[in-house]
Amino acid sequence: MIIKLKNEITLSQEKSFRQLLVDKRIEVIPTVAGNQKLFVVVGRFGELSKREIRAHPLVATILEVDRPYKLASKLARRQKTVVHLNGVKIGSNETVIMAGPCSVETKSLINEIAKGVKSAGCQILRGGAYKPRTGPYDFQGLGKIGLHFLKEAAINSGLKVITEIMDIRDIELVEKYTDIFQVGTRNMQNYPLLRELGKSRKPVLLKRGMWATYKELLLAAEYILLGGNEKVILCERGIRTHVPETRFTLDLNAVAYLKHESHLPVIVDPSHGTGRANLVRAMSRAAIAAGADGLLIETHIDPRKSFSDADQTISIQELKKLVKEIKNVAHAIGRS
Amino acid sequence: MIIKLKNEITLSQEKSFRQLLVDKRIEVIPTVAGNQKLFVVVGRFGELSKREIRAHPLVATILEVDRPYKLASKLARRQKTVVHLNGVKIGSNETVIMAGPCSVETKSLINEIAKGVKSAGCQILRGGAYKPRTGPYDFQGLGKIGLHFLKEAAINSGLKVITEIMDIRDIELVEKYTDIFQVGTRNMQNYPLLRELGKSRKPVLLKRGMWATYKELLLAAEYILLGGNEKVILCERGIRTHVPETRFTLDLNAVAYLKHESHLPVIVDPSHGTGRANLVRAMSRAAIAAGADGLLIETHIDPRKSFSDADQTISIQELKKLVKEIKNVAHAIGRS
Amino acid sequence: MIIKLKNEITLSQEKSFRQLLVDKRIEVIPTVAGNQKLFVVVGRFGELSKREIRAHPLVATILEVDRPYKLASKLARRQKTVVHLNGVKIGSNETVIMAGPCSVETKSLINEIAKGVKSAGCQILRGGAYKPRTGPYDFQGLGKIGLHFLKEAAINSGLKVITEIMDIRDIELVEKYTDIFQVGTRNMQNYPLLRELGKSRKPVLLKRGMWATYKELLLAAEYILLGGNEKVILCERGIRTHVPETRFTLDLNAVAYLKHESHLPVIVDPSHGTGRANLVRAMSRAAIAAGADGLLIETHIDPRKSFSDADQTISIQELKKLVKEIKNVAHAIGRS
Amino acid sequence: MIIKLKNEITLSQEKSFRQLLVDKRIEVIPTVAGNQKLFVVVGRFGELSKREIRAHPLVATILEVDRPYKLASKLARRQKTVVHLNGVKIGSNETVIMAGPCSVETKSLINEIAKGVKSAGCQILRGGAYKPRTGPYDFQGLGKIGLHFLKEAAINSGLKVITEIMDIRDIELVEKYTDIFQVGTRNMQNYPLLRELGKSRKPVLLKRGMWATYKELLLAAEYILLGGNEKVILCERGIRTHVPETRFTLDLNAVAYLKHESHLPVIVDPSHGTGRANLVRAMSRAAIAAGADGLLIETHIDPRKSFSDADQTISIQELKKLVKEIKNVAHAIGRS
Repeated sequence: MIIKLKNEITLSQEKSFRQLLVDKRIEVIPTVAGNQKLFVVVGRFGELSKREIRAHPLVATILEVDRPYKLASKLARRQKTVVHLNGVKIGSNETVIMAGPCSVETKSLINEIAKGVKSAGCQILRGGAYKPRTGPYDFQGLGKIGLHFLKEAAINSGLKVITEIMDIRDIELVEKYTDIFQVGTRNMQNYPLLRELGKSRKPVLLKRGMWATYKELLLAAEYILLGGNEKVILCERGIRTHVPETRFTLDLNAVAYLKHESHLPVIVDPSHGTGRANLVRAMSRAAIAAGADGLLIETHIDPRKSFSDADQTISIQELKKLVKEIKNVAHAIGRS
Repeated sequence: MIIKLKNEITLSQEKSFRQLLVDKRIEVIPTVAGNQKLFVVVGRFGELSKREIRAHPLVATILEVDRPYKLASKLARRQKTVVHLNGVKIGSNETVIMAGPCSVETKSLINEIAKGVKSAGCQILRGGAYKPRTGPYDFQGLGKIGLHFLKEAAINSGLKVITEIMDIRDIELVEKYTDIFQVGTRNMQNYPLLRELGKSRKPVLLKRGMWATYKELLLAAEYILLGGNEKVILCERGIRTHVPETRFTLDLNAVAYLKHESHLPVIVDPSHGTGRANLVRAMSRAAIAAGADGLLIETHIDPRKSFSDADQTISIQELKKLVKEIKNVAHAIGRS
Repeated sequence: MIIKLKNEITLSQEKSFRQLLVDKRIEVIPTVAGNQKLFVVVGRFGELSKREIRAHPLVATILEVDRPYKLASKLARRQKTVVHLNGVKIGSNETVIMAGPCSVETKSLINEIAKGVKSAGCQILRGGAYKPRTGPYDFQGLGKIGLHFLKEAAINSGLKVITEIMDIRDIELVEKYTDIFQVGTRNMQNYPLLRELGKSRKPVLLKRGMWATYKELLLAAEYILLGGNEKVILCERGIRTHVPETRFTLDLNAVAYLKHESHLPVIVDPSHGTGRANLVRAMSRAAIAAGADGLLIETHIDPRKSFSDADQTISIQELKKLVKEIKNVAHAIGRS
Repeated sequence: MIIKLKNEITLSQEKSFRQLLVDKRIEVIPTVAGNQKLFVVVGRFGELSKREIRAHPLVATILEVDRPYKLASKLARRQKTVVHLNGVKIGSNETVIMAGPCSVETKSLINEIAKGVKSAGCQILRGGAYKPRTGPYDFQGLGKIGLHFLKEAAINSGLKVITEIMDIRDIELVEKYTDIFQVGTRNMQNYPLLRELGKSRKPVLLKRGMWATYKELLLAAEYILLGGNEKVILCERGIRTHVPETRFTLDLNAVAYLKHESHLPVIVDPSHGTGRANLVRAMSRAAIAAGADGLLIETHIDPRKSFSDADQTISIQELKKLVKEIKNVAHAIGRS
């Protein structure tokens, strides 16, 4: 259950109301969603009835949410969450495309890719400066200078930036450069990281763990939401299955399910979700048709020369075709 | 490698050419694709070079197919296979929808459903008379009388019929009633059944095993094709994964991959692929956007009263919405 | 629920009792387990109470089995099922080892292997005459002559025979040669085959489908048991997972679970369950320690020359070491 | 490739040798294993031949390791790594059992459990103070005071301590209380955490990600080893599969494989690996028989009252039986 407090409530009123609940053996976690103060009830009910709580003078309303996640559920928020990025609206009727290289490699290259990404009609530039690599001998990203190149390239081309945050100690630094934090699949259940990002006011794109259930993804989102950061974007990027022909199995059921169950925007990453450049266009169309709010695509001027993920990276030319097709599909299902 | 023989070749010429190959330690399996006689070369090459074989007077051409499957590969046949059913063309530019109940229950019900399926704009009526049920205490289908009801309902409504074949001993009977044989997921590697269906001239819809790789599906198709039945339709219906929220994980990567790799039509079953009626429409749209040639849908007048698969069965009203949406998506990607 | 009938009951008494139940809307399936006549109650209860049924003069007792499978459950039979094969007792305190080549290749080779298998201390000779191969171009087994070679080799060495049955039409033939029918993983849910094997009085080793849950395996066994063949042996042989380093993931949890849940013997196939000869010994020890009643092992005089499954086939020398180690582990857990 | 340097080498010699390699376009990462200085060669070879490197006066020897992981491979170290904990030897011939509650709940309870664990014959006390919980509303552990209770209970009973580290910022604190750091399954690819633990000199038990391949586990270990901490203990704790009857599928193939491929100790967690208390004993026996060096077990005075993981927690009585059985199996395979 979620208790919505009235807007004009003072801190001391909030405190005394919370004490009242404690006295009645009702444990709550206070949080905010936008400007709305909330108490999320944890566990079983205590010695006050729902009717009594609803009738309390400080309470605006109560929401019954019979899900393990509360804030992430549609029962907690009927309208869709739209993440605004100075003109770009993720989760609205428009389709948002984030594209760029797996990792930032050189200043000139990221600038050239950014121009291509912009000219293809995308809104956001992706690129890794800190790369979570399976082995310690792989290229680990350029680090801070990579962030700098990425930001500069995005500004030059009129794009927003998304980049991955791996290390809790880098949040302050990365926050200066990025418009959206990306939490990678391996970190979906890195709870200290999620909690810290809950304190930020920048949007967080949370990639589904390659092993995770839908419930687990929504519970991971709940960690961020509960911190007061309501700008969470879910991302389906493929799960581990027995199929050897693709790198991962893109689970578009997840998109349809999450859009039914949650108010949060859902983005799809068909590059990792297939691991094969020649399947990316078809699966991008499918993702949008399934109801996704946007895409996250790996692209490069010359995919064969990409430092990492070369097999799944498409060229700028291919990206342009993709954007065109996506628009047609989006219109067909009543989106812009 | 596949050796295409000239059309005007006599049986005795074919025989002596085959003997020549045997003498040169080249093992072949003779088959046909339409009217085209073929020798499929098995295993390594023998004592004749490709050039020598190509130059043989009985040989039209040779096709090099470096895949474990030969006839199912695009390398063996450049044009897409279109399965013609007296007006319905599966694998062509049109989108084909097969819909109906999980199992045929009563004569009046299947008639009523058939009318709904027709009025929704579908072309083919599905319905099980022989049901492969996980346990022996579940409803096993009406058997022969079910086939009769199904066929009659289809004729009354101007639809074609697809129904499942489980038992090799029923092929002759089922062939009389159905327009398409359906091989269920559990039987994808029932090789005696596949071989017998290879001798039929009726189309076979081959459902992917819920455990199968793409290669295994194509090799199962190869068993049928090698028997001389070139009317094989592949069907993605969801795989077993760790995800508990859906019955299966619909793997649309498979659609994109199979359309790249094979000339055979690909159909998607979003009913089994999700196991949830409220996800069927979204995943139907996604399937078509990914490139599927059609859909296989479970529908019922009153889904809650369905003998089996009630959770994943949609109403006729929902089916009508689905067909409308599918048409829009199909147009958006250049199909009719 | 299962109704055990009294032993001295006549056919006409049985018939009239069944009619009584039908009249009271209680659907039952009559079967036997050994010499015990049983009625298995299907679905919900009708208009007779349990007390009334138990009090009926033809009823020995009733067993409440709140499982989807009935006859396979421990609730239906407290003592462990022991399959007797003229001296070999599967499911008893002794550990039974079935070993041999993937497929019967030549008469001399199978004889040589049989001698090795016997000398290593195994009791049963395995070998495929009809092979379910993923592709139609792979070696499909020697067929009838293979059965003949296998049987002869087993007799010569004093071993019993287990071989695979794939085609329902071959049951009569294979029954003449084999002591145990093996149902392969791909056929675990080939229900017509299971039903026919239910009519045989020869034991059936039922391999778990590589996709199957434990419940599905027990329900597949139920198809055979319900036919009146109580000699069902379950076999864990590995499941499909995301792990690329092994051919399958041997799921020994299944052994522990099945021994808790069912009275049927459980055999483990570590050859397919790992796909790597160098892991077979360790996993054989683990299988016995987990509670398995025996093993099914691929062995060959010269594994590298094996027609199929060479990577997972161990030599006779390795088999001897394996048997020795297994005996030690079996003793350690109180088996002989 | 790994270059072993001579022991008596000075820092300036090391530095100039490294510069030489850089000049010859050979990239290396310097590290230590025990007292042995090593250069791990990253990527392709440069302008010096292996022979030339081996002949260099500062080089003791070179090791060719054709694996993506280097230090974790048996090719880098022939003897098994034994982790010494003041009397307890993990990875030696003895079998080590770590047991305790999922989370530390109260001071008296952890003391009572510790006594039970000791009396059962175990060597190490486990217990979570910081718990990675799927949802933010679940009990998150007692934190620092929990560490204190755990350490005290272990000392009182003469046990060592293992506890989980989740947050990189807690390393210094946890290090004071624990004898072994446990990295949980969700953090197997939390690379910043692994790198920091590589700088510690306390052992690290690294749990396999529930999605991870064997190679990925060994590469995660490599991150720690490369930091100079050679006391890495691998842990198999079950993977995510389609099987619904168990919480995870314990993959004992992993044990056999890892013991073949690596010199690192391997521990098995049958509590998480089954999720069912009634399977823990059987799977503990199986783990030891497969070659595991020890076990990690959840136990509680009253499992039903456990704050978390109640279903998979065994009682102290059950633990005693388990230890007895394990000893028998260990002896049977030649361990103590």
